[in-house]
Amino acid sequence: MPFINVKLAKGRTAEQKQQFTEAITKAAAQILNVKEEWVTVVFDEYERDNWASGGTLHSIKFEEGFGKMGAE
Amino acid sequence: MPFINVKLAKGRTAEQKQQFTEAITKAAAQILNVKEEWVTVVFDEYERDNWASGGTLHSIKFEEGFGKMGAE
Amino acid sequence: MPFINVKLAKGRTAEQKQQFTEAITKAAAQILNVKEEWVTVVFDEYERDNWASGGTLHSIKFEEGFGKMGAE
Amino acid sequence: MPFINVKLAKGRTAEQKQQFTEAITKAAAQILNVKEEWVTVVFDEYERDNWASGGTLHSIKFEEGFGKMGAE
Amino acid sequence: MPFINVKLAKGRTAEQKQQFTEAITKAAAQILNVKEEWVTVVFDEYERDNWASGGTLHSIKFEEGFGKMGAE
Amino acid sequence: MPFINVKLAKGRTAEQKQQFTEAITKAAAQILNVKEEWVTVVFDEYERDNWASGGTLHSIKFEEGFGKMGAE
Repeated sequence: MPFINVKLAKGRTAEQKQQFTEAITKAAAQILNVKEEWVTVVFDEYERDNWASGGTLHSIKFEEGFGKMGAE
Repeated sequence: MPFINVKLAKGRTAEQKQQFTEAITKAAAQILNVKEEWVTVVFDEYERDNWASGGTLHSIKFEEGFGKMGAE
Repeated sequence: MPFINVKLAKGRTAEQKQQFTEAITKAAAQILNVKEEWVTVVFDEYERDNWASGGTLHSIKFEEGFGKMGAE
Repeated sequence: MPFINVKLAKGRTAEQKQQFTEAITKAAAQILNVKEEWVTVVFDEYERDNWASGGTLHSIKFEEGFGKMGAE
Repeated sequence: MPFINVKLAKGRTAEQKQQFTEAITKAAAQILNVKEEWVTVVFDEYERDNWASGGTLHSIKFEEGFGKMGAE
Repeated sequence: MPFINVKLAKGRTAEQKQQFTEAITKAAAQILNVKEEWVTVVFDEYERDNWASGGTLHSIKFEEGFGKMGAE
């Protein structure tokens, strides 16, 4: 506790996920008053044809690279 | 907002997912009183040995094609 | 199957949720090729201080009524 | 109803998932006072670089086989 | 790991939830080859107007007591 | 995108949730290469008799204040 589920577009490296996990976990420990070893983080990575906003799949809406800055 | 997560058996085409997304998004806008661009839809697709009902995995319970009409 | 989870701001009536459920369920039957009785819809309703976007809780960002049109 | 979502490390066999499903479903029927055919179980299987605890991805923290006894 | 989320109709006692948790946890340890202390179980309890099947909210479809046997 | 769901024990203030949201959102922007306004964070708060670990509900296992440091 806490259990943190991150849903995002496929395409981040293990190194990015590790850095993000560290940042979240430290923030949880400092702000939410829990121990770091209590924090679980799990990532659900989505193909662009399984994520839609405004009524349109991102595989249709965006070019390759969507979900990274400059690619909005 | 809203964020809509659809869990279903693998096997729909991107075109089906797009049509379903459109239908959900329009319905949300009309009925729930939100803007279409606020609506997110994400699909989680399951292999038949990761979905069970009545105590039995669907990979055991059903033939190929389960989850489509006529295949109950 | 499918199992559809709708996360949204608190404040819709049972009637709105019933209408939305009907619309989603019919769309699933027509487009995803499933029977209506297979479709489950569950709503998770959120207080505005449990939902944040762009780094700010909606209880801070928005006036009462957020999540309804005209209230963006 | 109930709908039970099991998130775990990749690597169980279909037979293990079937046995676990049966056990959960029977327990739900006996203890929660529902019919077995109402119970749905879905498994989300995670690669070790999508699951972290204590601030570290399990792909970094553990050798192959993590999530099975003897492998802590 | 594993993390098990149980979504069900409101109305079970803490004692029922404790018994079900014990049963699931033991089954996980025996069948999935994990330690009992690794297993987390969380319950999401739903009002009947936040759960629908076959296109109808359970608050409309069922009398009081739905989700318990004899009440289908 | 990303959509981040934080499940935790009830009892944090809106101020703690706001600070945690800010920290997560900034970390996502810096590390995952997304814009801050793309990031959604939602909190699911649990009563202690809806969260269990090691086979025991936290309402049984812990005194008041569980989930905060010093209360393990």
